[in-house]
Amino acid sequence: MNVYKIVVEYDGSHYSGWQRQPKQKTVQGEIEKAIKKLFDEQVVIHGSGRTDGGVHAYGQVASFMTHYYLPAEKVTYVLNNFLPDDIRIIETEEKNSDFHARYSAIGKEYVYKIYTGDDHLAFKTKYYHILDKPLDLNLIKEAMTYFLGTHDFQAFKSAGSKVMRTERTILEFDLDVRDEQLIFSIHGNGFLYNMVRIIIGTLIKVGLGEIKPTDIPELLKMKDRSKTRYTAPAEGLYLNKVYYK
Amino acid sequence: MNVYKIVVEYDGSHYSGWQRQPKQKTVQGEIEKAIKKLFDEQVVIHGSGRTDGGVHAYGQVASFMTHYYLPAEKVTYVLNNFLPDDIRIIETEEKNSDFHARYSAIGKEYVYKIYTGDDHLAFKTKYYHILDKPLDLNLIKEAMTYFLGTHDFQAFKSAGSKVMRTERTILEFDLDVRDEQLIFSIHGNGFLYNMVRIIIGTLIKVGLGEIKPTDIPELLKMKDRSKTRYTAPAEGLYLNKVYYK
Repeated sequence: MNVYKIVVEYDGSHYSGWQRQPKQKTVQGEIEKAIKKLFDEQVVIHGSGRTDGGVHAYGQVASFMTHYYLPAEKVTYVLNNFLPDDIRIIETEEKNSDFHARYSAIGKEYVYKIYTGDDHLAFKTKYYHILDKPLDLNLIKEAMTYFLGTHDFQAFKSAGSKVMRTERTILEFDLDVRDEQLIFSIHGNGFLYNMVRIIIGTLIKVGLGEIKPTDIPELLKMKDRSKTRYTAPAEGLYLNKVYYK
Repeated sequence: MNVYKIVVEYDGSHYSGWQRQPKQKTVQGEIEKAIKKLFDEQVVIHGSGRTDGGVHAYGQVASFMTHYYLPAEKVTYVLNNFLPDDIRIIETEEKNSDFHARYSAIGKEYVYKIYTGDDHLAFKTKYYHILDKPLDLNLIKEAMTYFLGTHDFQAFKSAGSKVMRTERTILEFDLDVRDEQLIFSIHGNGFLYNMVRIIIGTLIKVGLGEIKPTDIPELLKMKDRSKTRYTAPAEGLYLNKVYYK
Protein backbone atom coordinates (compact mmCIF):
# COMPACT_ATOMS: atom_id res chain seq x y z
CA MET A 1 0.00 0.00 0.00
CA ASN A 2 1.14 3.55 -0.73
CA VAL A 3 0.63 6.32 1.80
CA TYR A 4 0.12 9.93 0.76
CA LYS A 5 0.09 13.07 2.85
CA ILE A 6 -1.87 15.97 1.38
CA VAL A 7 -1.87 19.60 2.53
CA VAL A 8 -5.27 21.15 1.86
CA GLU A 9 -6.52 24.73 1.73
CA TYR A 10 -10.27 25.36 1.84
CA ASP A 11 -12.82 28.11 2.09
CA GLY A 12 -15.14 26.45 4.60
CA SER A 13 -18.11 28.75 4.01
CA HIS A 14 -19.93 26.42 1.61
CA TYR A 15 -19.28 23.21 3.62
CA SER A 16 -20.75 21.53 6.68
CA GLY A 17 -17.27 21.18 8.12
CA TRP A 18 -14.51 18.67 7.47
CA GLN A 19 -16.04 15.36 8.44
CA ARG A 20 -17.91 13.21 5.92
CA GLN A 21 -21.65 13.10 6.65
CA PRO A 22 -24.50 11.58 4.69
CA LYS A 23 -26.33 14.11 2.47
CA GLN A 24 -24.09 17.00 3.51
CA LYS A 25 -21.37 18.68 1.49
CA THR A 26 -18.18 18.30 3.54
CA VAL A 27 -14.50 18.81 2.75
CA GLN A 28 -13.53 15.23 3.57
CA GLY A 29 -16.43 13.97 1.44
CA GLU A 30 -15.36 16.07 -1.55
CA ILE A 31 -11.73 14.94 -1.32
CA GLU A 32 -12.71 11.28 -1.01
CA LYS A 33 -14.93 11.64 -4.08
CA ALA A 34 -12.02 13.17 -6.01
CA ILE A 35 -9.68 10.34 -4.95
CA LYS A 36 -12.28 7.80 -6.06
CA LYS A 37 -12.37 9.47 -9.46
CA LEU A 38 -8.59 9.29 -9.66
CA PHE A 39 -7.88 5.78 -8.36
CA ASP A 40 -11.33 4.17 -8.77
CA GLU A 41 -10.94 2.95 -5.21
CA GLN A 42 -13.03 3.84 -2.16
CA VAL A 43 -10.42 5.46 0.06
CA VAL A 44 -10.88 6.86 3.58
CA ILE A 45 -8.80 9.93 4.31
CA HIS A 46 -7.72 10.86 7.83
CA GLY A 47 -7.59 14.56 8.64
CA SER A 48 -5.29 15.95 11.32
CA GLY A 49 -8.55 16.83 13.06
CA ARG A 50 -12.06 17.96 12.23
CA THR A 51 -13.02 21.50 11.51
CA ASP A 52 -16.58 22.71 12.14
CA GLY A 53 -18.91 24.16 9.51
CA GLY A 54 -17.72 27.58 8.38
CA VAL A 55 -14.14 27.08 9.66
CA HIS A 56 -11.44 27.56 7.02
CA ALA A 57 -8.01 26.05 6.41
CA TYR A 58 -4.81 27.31 4.85
CA GLY A 59 -2.97 24.11 5.74
CA GLN A 60 -5.16 21.22 6.87
CA VAL A 61 -3.30 17.89 6.51
CA ALA A 62 -4.81 14.53 5.62
CA SER A 63 -3.38 11.10 4.84
CA PHE A 64 -4.68 8.10 2.95
CA MET A 65 -3.57 4.68 1.75
CA THR A 66 -4.11 3.32 -1.73
CA HIS A 67 -3.15 0.24 -3.78
CA TYR A 68 -2.32 2.53 -6.67
CA TYR A 69 0.75 4.61 -7.33
CA LEU A 70 1.24 8.00 -8.93
CA PRO A 71 4.05 10.52 -8.33
CA ALA A 72 3.05 13.05 -5.68
CA GLU A 73 2.86 16.06 -8.01
CA LYS A 74 0.51 14.13 -10.31
CA VAL A 75 -1.78 13.40 -7.36
CA THR A 76 -1.94 17.15 -6.60
CA TYR A 77 -2.58 18.02 -10.22
CA VAL A 78 -5.34 15.49 -10.87
CA LEU A 79 -7.14 15.94 -7.54
CA ASN A 80 -7.25 19.71 -8.10
CA ASN A 81 -8.92 19.07 -11.44
CA PHE A 82 -11.62 16.98 -9.79
CA LEU A 83 -12.13 19.12 -6.67
CA PRO A 84 -14.41 22.17 -6.35
CA ASP A 85 -12.47 25.44 -6.72
CA ASP A 86 -12.76 26.31 -3.04
CA ILE A 87 -10.83 23.20 -1.97
CA ARG A 88 -7.23 23.13 -3.19
CA ILE A 89 -4.49 20.56 -2.66
CA ILE A 90 -1.40 22.66 -1.96
CA GLU A 91 1.06 19.78 -1.80
CA THR A 92 1.21 15.99 -1.84
CA GLU A 93 3.99 13.91 -0.33
CA GLU A 94 4.68 10.15 -0.33
CA LYS A 95 5.12 8.89 3.23
CA ASN A 96 6.09 5.71 5.07
CA SER A 97 3.28 3.37 6.04
CA ASP A 98 3.44 4.53 9.68
CA PHE A 99 2.44 8.11 8.82
CA HIS A 100 -1.02 9.17 9.96
CA ALA A 101 -2.17 12.79 9.64
CA ARG A 102 -3.77 12.74 13.06
CA TYR A 103 -1.60 10.44 15.19
CA SER A 104 1.72 11.67 13.78
CA ALA A 105 0.91 15.36 14.37
CA ILE A 106 2.97 17.02 17.10
CA GLY A 107 1.40 20.48 16.93
CA LYS A 108 -0.96 22.84 15.17
CA GLU A 109 -1.26 26.50 14.43
CA TYR A 110 -4.59 28.28 14.11
CA VAL A 111 -5.25 31.80 12.91
CA TYR A 112 -8.25 33.80 14.11
CA LYS A 113 -9.34 36.96 12.29
CA ILE A 114 -11.40 39.79 13.76
CA TYR A 115 -12.48 42.82 11.76
CA THR A 116 -13.48 46.00 13.58
CA GLY A 117 -14.06 48.31 10.60
CA ASP A 118 -17.11 48.86 8.41
CA ASP A 119 -15.71 48.58 4.90
CA HIS A 120 -17.39 46.07 2.54
CA LEU A 121 -18.87 44.04 5.38
CA ALA A 122 -21.02 41.92 3.04
CA PHE A 123 -17.77 40.36 1.80
CA LYS A 124 -16.16 39.84 5.21
CA THR A 125 -18.81 38.04 7.23
CA LYS A 126 -17.73 34.56 6.10
CA TYR A 127 -14.03 35.26 6.71
CA TYR A 128 -13.84 37.38 9.85
CA HIS A 129 -15.57 37.74 13.14
CA ILE A 130 -17.05 41.21 12.68
CA LEU A 131 -17.00 43.27 15.85
CA ASP A 132 -18.30 46.82 16.02
CA LYS A 133 -17.24 47.47 19.57
CA PRO A 134 -13.83 48.94 20.41
CA LEU A 135 -11.39 46.49 22.02
CA ASP A 136 -8.59 47.44 24.39
CA LEU A 137 -5.63 45.78 22.70
CA ASN A 138 -3.25 46.29 25.59
CA LEU A 139 -5.53 44.32 27.89
CA ILE A 140 -5.84 41.59 25.25
CA LYS A 141 -2.07 41.37 24.79
CA GLU A 142 -1.55 41.08 28.53
CA ALA A 143 -4.22 38.38 28.79
CA MET A 144 -2.63 36.38 25.96
CA THR A 145 0.56 35.86 27.94
CA TYR A 146 -1.33 33.88 30.60
CA PHE A 147 -2.23 31.20 28.05
CA LEU A 148 1.40 30.48 27.17
CA GLY A 149 2.90 27.29 28.57
CA THR A 150 1.28 24.11 29.83
CA HIS A 151 -2.18 24.28 31.41
CA ASP A 152 -5.22 22.16 31.99
CA PHE A 153 -7.64 23.62 29.44
CA GLN A 154 -10.74 21.82 30.70
CA ALA A 155 -12.63 25.11 31.01
CA PHE A 156 -11.73 25.91 27.41
CA LYS A 157 -13.31 22.93 25.71
CA SER A 158 -16.84 22.38 24.42
CA ALA A 159 -18.89 19.38 25.41
CA GLY A 160 -18.93 16.70 22.74
CA SER A 161 -15.24 15.83 22.76
CA LYS A 162 -14.35 12.64 24.55
CA VAL A 163 -10.69 13.26 25.34
CA MET A 164 -9.52 12.15 28.79
CA ARG A 165 -6.48 14.36 29.14
CA THR A 166 -7.13 18.07 28.89
CA GLU A 167 -3.59 19.36 29.44
CA ARG A 168 -2.15 21.22 26.46
CA THR A 169 0.89 23.40 25.83
CA ILE A 170 0.66 26.74 24.04
CA LEU A 171 4.04 27.41 22.42
CA GLU A 172 3.38 30.74 20.72
CA PHE A 173 0.50 33.21 20.76
CA ASP A 174 0.75 36.36 18.64
CA LEU A 175 -1.47 39.25 17.65
CA ASP A 176 -0.85 41.13 14.44
CA VAL A 177 -2.83 44.36 14.04
CA ARG A 178 -3.24 45.51 10.42
CA ASP A 179 -5.50 48.55 10.15
CA GLU A 180 -8.86 47.30 11.35
CA GLN A 181 -7.92 43.62 11.28
CA LEU A 182 -6.79 41.70 14.34
CA ILE A 183 -4.98 38.52 13.32
CA PHE A 184 -4.30 36.12 16.17
CA SER A 185 -2.04 33.11 15.64
CA ILE A 186 -1.79 30.41 18.23
CA HIS A 187 0.59 27.44 18.09
CA GLY A 188 0.19 24.55 20.49
CA ASN A 189 0.97 20.86 20.81
CA GLY A 190 -2.73 20.19 20.40
CA PHE A 191 -6.13 21.78 20.93
CA LEU A 192 -9.34 20.58 22.56
CA TYR A 193 -12.72 20.89 20.84
CA ASN A 194 -13.49 24.61 20.29
CA MET A 195 -10.50 25.55 22.46
CA VAL A 196 -9.23 28.28 20.12
CA ARG A 197 -12.69 29.79 19.74
CA ILE A 198 -13.24 29.81 23.53
CA ILE A 199 -9.81 31.37 24.14
CA ILE A 200 -10.56 34.08 21.56
CA GLY A 201 -14.06 34.57 22.99
CA THR A 202 -12.49 35.08 26.41
CA LEU A 203 -9.96 37.56 25.01
CA ILE A 204 -12.81 39.53 23.44
CA LYS A 205 -14.45 39.75 26.87
CA VAL A 206 -11.09 41.01 28.17
CA GLY A 207 -10.88 43.59 25.37
CA LEU A 208 -14.39 44.78 26.20
CA GLY A 209 -13.43 45.18 29.86
CA GLU A 210 -15.78 42.47 31.11
CA ILE A 211 -12.95 40.24 32.37
CA LYS A 212 -9.56 41.34 33.71
CA PRO A 213 -6.38 39.86 32.17
CA THR A 214 -5.43 38.60 35.62
CA ASP A 215 -8.67 36.58 35.72
CA ILE A 216 -7.23 34.22 33.09
CA PRO A 217 -4.98 32.20 35.45
CA GLU A 218 -8.00 31.87 37.75
CA LEU A 219 -10.24 30.68 34.88
CA LEU A 220 -7.61 28.09 33.95
CA LYS A 221 -7.29 26.93 37.55
CA MET A 222 -11.04 26.66 38.17
CA LYS A 223 -11.49 24.26 35.22
CA ASP A 224 -15.12 25.35 35.04
CA ARG A 225 -16.59 25.66 31.56
CA SER A 226 -19.53 27.70 32.86
CA LYS A 227 -17.10 30.56 33.52
CA THR A 228 -15.90 30.74 29.90
CA ARG A 229 -19.22 30.95 28.17
CA TYR A 230 -18.37 32.91 25.06
CA THR A 231 -17.24 30.91 22.01
CA ALA A 232 -16.08 33.16 19.17
CA PRO A 233 -17.83 32.29 15.88
CA ALA A 234 -16.49 29.74 13.39
CA GLU A 235 -16.10 32.21 10.50
CA GLY A 236 -12.94 33.82 11.85
CA LEU A 237 -11.06 30.54 12.40
CA TYR A 238 -8.40 29.12 10.05
CA LEU A 239 -6.40 25.94 10.57
CA ASN A 240 -3.11 27.38 9.40
CA LYS A 241 -0.52 24.63 9.83
CA VAL A 242 -0.08 21.13 11.20
CA TYR A 243 3.35 20.22 12.53
CA TYR A 244 5.03 16.80 12.20
CA LYS A 245 8.41 15.52 13.34
CA MET B 1 -47.06 56.42 -0.65
CA ASN B 2 -43.46 56.84 0.46
CA VAL B 3 -40.60 56.02 -1.90
CA TYR B 4 -37.25 54.80 -0.66
CA LYS B 5 -34.00 54.35 -2.52
CA ILE B 6 -31.61 51.80 -1.02
CA VAL B 7 -27.95 51.20 -1.90
CA VAL B 8 -27.09 47.55 -1.45
CA GLU B 9 -23.81 45.66 -1.16
CA TYR B 10 -23.83 41.88 -1.56
CA ASP B 11 -21.54 38.90 -1.83
CA GLY B 12 -23.36 37.11 -4.65
CA SER B 13 -21.69 33.74 -4.17
CA HIS B 14 -24.48 32.21 -2.10
CA TYR B 15 -27.35 33.57 -4.27
CA SER B 16 -29.01 32.66 -7.56
CA GLY B 17 -28.60 36.24 -8.70
CA TRP B 18 -30.64 39.35 -7.99
CA GLN B 19 -34.08 38.53 -9.34
CA ARG B 20 -36.73 36.90 -7.15
CA GLN B 21 -37.43 33.30 -8.19
CA PRO B 22 -39.60 30.65 -6.58
CA LYS B 23 -37.63 28.24 -4.39
CA GLN B 24 -34.29 29.98 -5.01
CA LYS B 25 -32.34 32.17 -2.65
CA THR B 26 -31.99 35.53 -4.43
CA VAL B 27 -30.92 38.99 -3.29
CA GLN B 28 -34.20 40.65 -4.27
CA GLY B 29 -36.12 37.88 -2.51
CA GLU B 30 -34.14 38.33 0.71
CA ILE B 31 -34.58 42.11 0.73
CA GLU B 32 -38.32 41.84 0.06
CA LYS B 33 -38.61 39.36 2.94
CA ALA B 34 -36.77 41.81 5.23
CA ILE B 35 -39.04 44.69 4.17
CA LYS B 36 -42.09 42.52 4.85
CA LYS B 37 -40.77 41.86 8.36
CA LEU B 38 -40.28 45.59 8.89
CA PHE B 39 -43.50 47.01 7.39
CA ASP B 40 -45.71 43.91 7.38
CA GLU B 41 -46.53 44.76 3.78
CA GLN B 42 -45.77 42.78 0.63
CA VAL B 43 -43.53 45.21 -1.23
CA VAL B 44 -41.96 44.76 -4.66
CA ILE B 45 -38.50 46.29 -4.97
CA HIS B 46 -37.10 47.44 -8.30
CA GLY B 47 -33.37 46.98 -8.84
CA SER B 48 -31.37 49.19 -11.20
CA GLY B 49 -30.93 45.95 -13.15
CA ARG B 50 -30.50 42.24 -12.56
CA THR B 51 -27.25 40.60 -11.66
CA ASP B 52 -26.63 36.94 -12.52
CA GLY B 53 -25.84 34.20 -10.01
CA GLY B 54 -22.36 34.67 -8.55
CA VAL B 55 -22.14 38.36 -9.53
CA HIS B 56 -21.42 40.72 -6.64
CA ALA B 57 -22.36 44.31 -5.85
CA TYR B 58 -20.71 47.11 -3.93
CA GLY B 59 -23.45 49.54 -4.88
CA GLN B 60 -26.58 48.04 -6.40
CA VAL B 61 -29.53 50.41 -6.11
CA ALA B 62 -33.17 49.48 -5.61
CA SER B 63 -36.35 51.44 -4.94
CA PHE B 64 -39.70 50.59 -3.40
CA MET B 65 -42.96 52.19 -2.36
CA THR B 66 -44.70 51.66 0.96
CA HIS B 67 -47.70 53.00 2.86
CA TYR B 68 -45.58 53.18 5.98
CA TYR B 69 -43.06 55.76 7.05
CA LEU B 70 -39.78 55.49 8.93
CA PRO B 71 -36.78 57.85 8.75
CA ALA B 72 -34.23 56.60 6.22
CA GLU B 73 -31.52 55.72 8.75
CA LYS B 74 -34.03 53.58 10.68
CA VAL B 75 -34.88 51.68 7.49
CA THR B 76 -31.17 50.92 6.98
CA TYR B 77 -30.72 49.87 10.56
CA VAL B 78 -33.75 47.57 10.80
CA LEU B 79 -33.34 45.97 7.37
CA ASN B 80 -29.70 45.13 8.18
CA ASN B 81 -30.91 43.37 11.30
CA PHE B 82 -33.29 41.21 9.28
CA LEU B 83 -31.01 40.57 6.29
CA PRO B 84 -28.39 37.81 5.99
CA ASP B 85 -24.88 39.09 6.75
CA ASP B 86 -23.76 38.91 3.13
CA ILE B 87 -26.38 41.45 2.02
CA ARG B 88 -25.92 44.91 3.55
CA ILE B 89 -27.92 48.09 3.08
CA ILE B 90 -25.27 50.80 2.80
CA GLU B 91 -27.65 53.74 2.66
CA THR B 92 -31.36 54.57 2.45
CA GLU B 93 -32.76 57.78 1.05
CA GLU B 94 -36.32 59.14 0.82
CA LYS B 95 -37.18 60.06 -2.76
CA ASN B 96 -39.97 61.73 -4.72
CA SER B 97 -42.67 59.49 -6.12
CA ASP B 98 -41.19 59.70 -9.62
CA PHE B 99 -37.94 58.02 -8.60
CA HIS B 100 -37.40 54.50 -9.97
CA ALA B 101 -34.08 52.68 -9.48
CA ARG B 102 -34.10 51.38 -13.04
CA TYR B 103 -35.79 54.09 -15.13
CA SER B 104 -34.13 57.00 -13.35
CA ALA B 105 -30.60 55.59 -13.73
CA ILE B 106 -28.37 57.50 -16.15
CA GLY B 107 -25.27 55.32 -15.87
CA LYS B 108 -23.52 52.45 -14.16
CA GLU B 109 -20.04 51.44 -13.18
CA TYR B 110 -18.91 47.84 -13.04
CA VAL B 111 -15.66 46.46 -11.66
CA TYR B 112 -14.14 43.24 -12.96
CA LYS B 113 -11.37 41.47 -11.02
CA ILE B 114 -8.84 39.03 -12.46
CA TYR B 115 -6.21 37.30 -10.35
CA THR B 116 -3.12 35.86 -12.02
CA GLY B 117 -1.20 34.65 -8.95
CA ASP B 118 -1.39 31.40 -7.01
CA ASP B 119 -1.72 32.56 -3.41
CA HIS B 120 -4.68 31.21 -1.38
CA LEU B 121 -6.68 30.34 -4.49
CA ALA B 122 -9.33 28.44 -2.50
CA PHE B 123 -10.42 31.82 -1.10
CA LYS B 124 -10.34 33.74 -4.38
CA THR B 125 -12.41 31.62 -6.76
CA LYS B 126 -15.72 33.21 -5.81
CA TYR B 127 -14.36 36.77 -6.01
CA TYR B 128 -11.97 36.80 -8.96
CA HIS B 129 -11.64 35.28 -12.36
CA ILE B 130 -8.51 33.16 -11.78
CA LEU B 131 -6.20 33.07 -14.78
CA ASP B 132 -2.94 31.16 -14.80
CA LYS B 133 -1.81 32.35 -18.21
CA PRO B 134 0.30 35.49 -18.64
CA LEU B 135 -1.54 38.43 -20.19
CA ASP B 136 0.08 41.19 -22.24
CA LEU B 137 -1.19 44.28 -20.41
CA ASN B 138 -0.01 46.73 -23.04
CA LEU B 139 -2.14 45.03 -25.66
CA ILE B 140 -5.10 45.02 -23.27
CA LYS B 141 -4.70 48.73 -22.48
CA GLU B 142 -4.54 49.55 -26.18
CA ALA B 143 -7.66 47.46 -26.88
CA MET B 144 -9.59 49.14 -24.05
CA THR B 145 -9.36 52.53 -25.80
CA TYR B 146 -11.41 51.25 -28.73
CA PHE B 147 -14.41 50.66 -26.47
CA LEU B 148 -14.57 54.28 -25.32
CA GLY B 149 -17.32 56.42 -26.80
CA THR B 150 -20.61 55.51 -28.44
CA HIS B 151 -20.91 52.21 -30.31
CA ASP B 152 -23.49 49.66 -31.29
CA PHE B 153 -22.68 46.83 -28.86
CA GLN B 154 -24.88 44.22 -30.52
CA ALA B 155 -21.95 41.79 -30.77
CA PHE B 156 -21.33 42.26 -27.03
CA LYS B 157 -24.67 41.10 -25.71
CA SER B 158 -25.95 37.66 -24.79
CA ALA B 159 -29.17 36.27 -26.14
CA GLY B 160 -32.04 36.51 -23.69
CA SER B 161 -32.24 40.29 -23.48
CA LYS B 162 -35.08 41.89 -25.37
CA VAL B 163 -33.75 45.44 -25.78
CA MET B 164 -34.32 47.02 -29.18
CA ARG B 165 -31.60 49.65 -29.13
CA THR B 166 -28.08 48.30 -28.67
CA GLU B 167 -26.15 51.57 -28.82
CA ARG B 168 -24.34 52.42 -25.59
CA THR B 169 -21.73 54.96 -24.55
CA ILE B 170 -18.62 54.00 -22.54
CA LEU B 171 -17.52 57.08 -20.60
CA GLU B 172 -14.52 55.68 -18.72
CA PHE B 173 -12.61 52.41 -18.85
CA ASP B 174 -9.66 51.94 -16.50
CA LEU B 175 -7.28 49.16 -15.51
CA ASP B 176 -5.61 49.21 -12.12
CA VAL B 177 -2.83 46.63 -11.66
CA ARG B 178 -2.09 45.75 -8.02
CA ASP B 179 0.48 42.98 -7.73
CA GLU B 180 -1.23 40.00 -9.33
CA GLN B 181 -4.68 41.57 -9.43
CA LEU B 182 -6.11 43.25 -12.50
CA ILE B 183 -9.00 45.54 -11.55
CA PHE B 184 -11.00 46.84 -14.50
CA SER B 185 -13.58 49.57 -13.99
CA ILE B 186 -15.99 50.50 -16.73
CA HIS B 187 -18.47 53.35 -16.59
CA GLY B 188 -21.18 53.66 -19.22
CA ASN B 189 -24.62 55.14 -19.73
CA GLY B 190 -25.97 51.59 -19.71
CA PHE B 191 -24.97 48.01 -20.41
CA LEU B 192 -26.56 45.19 -22.40
CA TYR B 193 -26.99 41.70 -20.97
CA ASN B 194 -23.53 40.23 -20.24
CA MET B 195 -21.90 43.16 -22.04
CA VAL B 196 -19.19 43.72 -19.42
CA ARG B 197 -18.34 40.02 -19.25
CA ILE B 198 -18.10 39.76 -23.05
CA ILE B 199 -15.92 42.89 -23.24
CA ILE B 200 -13.61 41.48 -20.54
CA GLY B 201 -13.61 38.06 -22.24
CA THR B 202 -12.56 39.76 -25.48
CA LEU B 203 -9.80 41.69 -23.67
CA ILE B 204 -8.50 38.42 -22.22
CA LYS B 205 -8.27 37.03 -25.77
CA VAL B 206 -6.34 40.18 -26.68
CA GLY B 207 -4.01 39.71 -23.69
CA LEU B 208 -3.38 36.11 -24.74
CA GLY B 209 -2.50 37.26 -28.26
CA GLU B 210 -5.46 35.55 -29.90
CA ILE B 211 -7.06 38.82 -31.06
CA LYS B 212 -5.28 42.05 -32.00
CA PRO B 213 -6.30 45.33 -30.32
CA THR B 214 -7.07 46.74 -33.75
CA ASP B 215 -9.61 43.93 -34.27
CA ILE B 216 -11.90 45.58 -31.70
CA PRO B 217 -13.29 48.33 -33.99
CA GLU B 218 -13.92 45.61 -36.56
CA LEU B 219 -15.74 43.41 -34.00
CA LEU B 220 -17.91 46.38 -33.03
CA LYS B 221 -18.69 47.18 -36.67
CA MET B 222 -19.54 43.58 -37.64
CA LYS B 223 -22.24 43.35 -34.90
CA ASP B 224 -21.81 39.59 -34.98
CA ARG B 225 -22.06 37.84 -31.64
CA SER B 226 -20.48 34.66 -33.03
CA LYS B 227 -17.18 36.58 -33.27
CA THR B 228 -17.11 37.46 -29.56
CA ARG B 229 -17.62 34.05 -28.11
CA TYR B 230 -15.81 34.29 -24.80
CA THR B 231 -17.84 35.54 -21.83
CA ALA B 232 -15.67 36.05 -18.73
CA PRO B 233 -17.12 34.25 -15.68
CA ALA B 234 -19.62 35.85 -13.27
CA GLU B 235 -17.37 35.55 -10.18
CA GLY B 236 -15.11 38.48 -11.15
CA LEU B 237 -17.95 40.94 -11.75
CA TYR B 238 -19.09 43.62 -9.28
CA LEU B 239 -21.83 46.22 -9.86
CA ASN B 240 -19.95 49.12 -8.29
CA LYS B 241 -22.15 52.16 -8.68
CA VAL B 242 -25.39 53.35 -10.25
CA TYR B 243 -25.57 56.97 -11.34
CA TYR B 244 -28.64 59.21 -11.11
CA LYS B 245 -29.19 62.84 -12.02
